Amino acid sequence: MINATIITIGDEILIGQIVDTNSASISRHLNKAGITVTEKLSIGDSAEQITSSLKQALERTNIVIITGGLGPTKDDITKHTLARFFSSQMREDEAVARHVKSMLEARGIVYNELNHSQAMVPEKCQVLFNHHGTAPGMWFEDERGHVAISLPGVPFEMEHLMEDEVMPRLKARFTLRANIHRTMITSGLPESMLAERIAQWEDALPKGLKLAYLPSPNIVRLRLSAYDRDDADSTRKEIEAQFDKLYHIIPEHIVGFEDASVQALVHDLLTQHHLTLATAESCTGGTIASRFTAMSGSSQYFLCGVVSYSNEAKRDVLGVNYDDIMSYGAVSETVVRQMAEGARRISGADYAISTSGIAGPTGGSKEKPVGTVWMAVATPTRTISMMRNSGTDRSQIINRASAYAIEMLYNELKNDIK
Amino acid sequence: MINATIITIGDEILIGQIVDTNSASISRHLNKAGITVTEKLSIGDSAEQITSSLKQALERTNIVIITGGLGPTKDDITKHTLARFFSSQMREDEAVARHVKSMLEARGIVYNELNHSQAMVPEKCQVLFNHHGTAPGMWFEDERGHVAISLPGVPFEMEHLMEDEVMPRLKARFTLRANIHRTMITSGLPESMLAERIAQWEDALPKGLKLAYLPSPNIVRLRLSAYDRDDADSTRKEIEAQFDKLYHIIPEHIVGFEDASVQALVHDLLTQHHLTLATAESCTGGTIASRFTAMSGSSQYFLCGVVSYSNEAKRDVLGVNYDDIMSYGAVSETVVRQMAEGARRISGADYAISTSGIAGPTGGSKEKPVGTVWMAVATPTRTISMMRNSGTDRSQIINRASAYAIEMLYNELKNDIK
Repeated sequence: MINATIITIGDEILIGQIVDTNSASISRHLNKAGITVTEKLSIGDSAEQITSSLKQALERTNIVIITGGLGPTKDDITKHTLARFFSSQMREDEAVARHVKSMLEARGIVYNELNHSQAMVPEKCQVLFNHHGTAPGMWFEDERGHVAISLPGVPFEMEHLMEDEVMPRLKARFTLRANIHRTMITSGLPESMLAERIAQWEDALPKGLKLAYLPSPNIVRLRLSAYDRDDADSTRKEIEAQFDKLYHIIPEHIVGFEDASVQALVHDLLTQHHLTLATAESCTGGTIASRFTAMSGSSQYFLCGVVSYSNEAKRDVLGVNYDDIMSYGAVSETVVRQMAEGARRISGADYAISTSGIAGPTGGSKEKPVGTVWMAVATPTRTISMMRNSGTDRSQIINRASAYAIEMLYNELKNDIK
Repeated sequence: MINATIITIGDEILIGQIVDTNSASISRHLNKAGITVTEKLSIGDSAEQITSSLKQALERTNIVIITGGLGPTKDDITKHTLARFFSSQMREDEAVARHVKSMLEARGIVYNELNHSQAMVPEKCQVLFNHHGTAPGMWFEDERGHVAISLPGVPFEMEHLMEDEVMPRLKARFTLRANIHRTMITSGLPESMLAERIAQWEDALPKGLKLAYLPSPNIVRLRLSAYDRDDADSTRKEIEAQFDKLYHIIPEHIVGFEDASVQALVHDLLTQHHLTLATAESCTGGTIASRFTAMSGSSQYFLCGVVSYSNEAKRDVLGVNYDDIMSYGAVSETVVRQMAEGARRISGADYAISTSGIAGPTGGSKEKPVGTVWMAVATPTRTISMMRNSGTDRSQIINRASAYAIEMLYNELKNDIK
C-alpha cells in the first residue's frame, strides 16, 4: 500500500484564524489515485517543528505533501527549512523568475528583492511550475525513494499544482492500487434506528469492506470503503452488490448516492424534467439561492430569487398582503405561503420555495423563539407549508432552515414527477 | 506555557469527504484562554492509531482534545479505546441514560440497545454532560496531571461543550497566562510591496512579537502574536503601539482590525449612519446577500436582495430595459448599472450593489470569457460601475466577484460619509 502524510504549515491554522480546506482537497486527489492518507498534521511556522514532523512522516509513509509557508515575506520559512533538510544549496530558477516578473507586471507591481527570492529554489528539488501564482511547488526524494512535495498554501494555486503536476508524477513514480469509496445517502432514519435496521446486513459485510456512518441533520450517509485493491472495477461491483442488498432493506430511505447534496438532487430533477425554480427568502438571506446557483447549469432552471428582508420588500416585490404581515407577523404561515406564491407569480417559475424565521440572536419571543422558521413550497398544483425549529445559533439556523426547505422541495418534486 | 494538541478522528477526514472545522473552533477557544496549540492531528478510526497518537500527544503537551468517533454505531471506537488506554472499566451513567431517552422520545425515536451504549462511560472519566446531543464528553487525567478530553464530532455539540464545560474546567485546573493575537487589515498593496514598505518597522519589532502575513484577494492581513505573557493588558498595549506606528507608515491602506471581513466593515458603517442596502445579483447568485444577512443586526439595514438570474427577472423585478439586455447582453455595463439602480428603486434603499458575469464553466466567449464580471454600486448621488476578471473556476469567480463588489461599496461608503 502506498500511503501519505499531509502537513499543513501556518500559525494561522493553530490559532484557528483560518479553516484548513487544502488538506481535504489533497486527500481527495490522493485517494482517487489509490494513495491512502494515514495522517494529517498541522504545525506552526517553526523550522524545528517542520524538520521533526517531516522526518517522522518520511519514515512512516511513502509520500509527504506539505502546504503553506512559501510566500515572499519573512514569516515564510518552509523553503529554506526544506533546503537544509535535504542538505541542498539554493539556485535561481530562470523560468520561475521570468514568470514572477511577467505576473507582477500584468498587475502593475514592481519586481523587488522579495519577489526575486521567490525564484530561488533548492538545487536538489524538481520545480513544479505554478502557472497561477508566484511561489513554485517543489518535489524532493530521499535515499529511500520517499517523496516530499511542497505546495503553496493559496487554495487555487495548490489545486492546479495537484492536478497538473503532482498527480501525474505520483502516478508515474509509484505503482498504485485502488482505493474505492462509495456513499449511499439515507434520509428519515436517525443513526441509531438506521443501525438497528441494517444490523444483519452490516454484520454480513465481507471483511475488506469498511462501513462508516456520517450523520448530519435529517441525513445519514453510509460509506463503504475498500483499500489497496488490485482491481478497481471488481471492487466497485462488489460494493454495488452490497448497496443493492441495502436498498432492498430500506428502499424508502435511500435518497441518493455519493456526496450529492439534496440541492444537487433537486438540480438533477429540475434539469431532467425542464422545470424552473424561484426562491423567496427572509431569514435564510440568500443562502438557498446561492446553494443552487453555485452549481454549474443552474441557469437552466433558476429564474429568480428574492431576499425580502423588510416587510415592504415582502409587499412590494413579492406582493404579500401588508395587513397579513401586520396581523400575523412576518414569521407566520400566512406570510411564508404568500411569499412562495409571490415568487412563483413574479418569475413564472414552476416551483418556488420560501422561508421566514427568527435567526437571532435577538428578535425572539415566547410564542416565536429564536430558531422558529416557517417554510413553504408553491408548486403548479398546491402550496404546502411547515414550521421547523431550526436551532439556537444564527448560522446554524440559517443553514438548517435552508436544508429543511430544500428537502421539502425535493420531496414535493419527487412526488410530482413519479 | 500550557500547551495542547488537538486530535480529530475519522476516516471521512482522511479521505477528504469532510472539511474539519472543529479543530479551528477548538483552537480559538484555547488560544483565547492562553493555551497554545502546538499541533493538530487528524487520524483514522483505528484503535492503534488513536492509542499511539494520544500517547505521544500526552507526552508532548499538557492538554489533548479529541473529537469524533463517539456515535452509537459500530464504526465509532473512540470511547472504548480511551477506556483501554486509561485501564478503565465501563459503567452506566444514569443521568446520561435519562437524557438520551428523553431526547429520543421528543423526536419520536425508540430507545434501543445502541442508544443504551451511549450512556456507558469509562469509570475513570468525569462526564461532561452534553445537553445538545446523545454522546457525552469525557475528561481523563493521567499520572502526570496531563488532561485528555474527548468530545463528540457534531460541531454544534462540540461547541457547546467547549464553552460550557471544557473551558471553565481548564481555567480552574491550570494556571494560564495570556496569548494575544491582533490583526490589522490592509487593502490595495500586494504582499511583496507591503513587505517592502513596512520592512523597517518589521525589523524593529520587539523579539517577543511575531508577525504573520495572511494574503487573500485584494486584502493582506497582518497579525502580531505574543505568547505566554504575564499581563494581557500590557501586551495588548504593546501591540497597539506597534500598530499605531504601522498606521503612520501606510494610513491609506489600513481598512480595519481583527478578522473583520469587508462586509463587516460595511455592516458597521451602514448601522452607525442609519443607511440601508439592497442587492441585485446575477452571477454571484445570492452570495452577497447571504454574507450580509449572516451578520446579526443586518435586518436594521438590509432591505431586499434580488437574484435576477433570468433576463425576464432582470426586466420584471428590477426594471432593466429588455432591449438593452438584447443589444448589450446581460453581462454588460449598461445592464449592471440598471440592476443596481433598479434594486435601489424597488426597495427604497440608500445604496444598492449589483453583479452580472459569467461564472462558467460554460457561457464564455472570446469577448466575454468565463470570469468576466460587471459590478455596479448605486448611491444617493451617482452610480459607478467596473468590470473585473474574477478568475477561472466557478466558485472562485462567485467568491471573488462578491468580495470585489462589496469592496467597491465599502470605498463609496467611506467617501460619502467622511
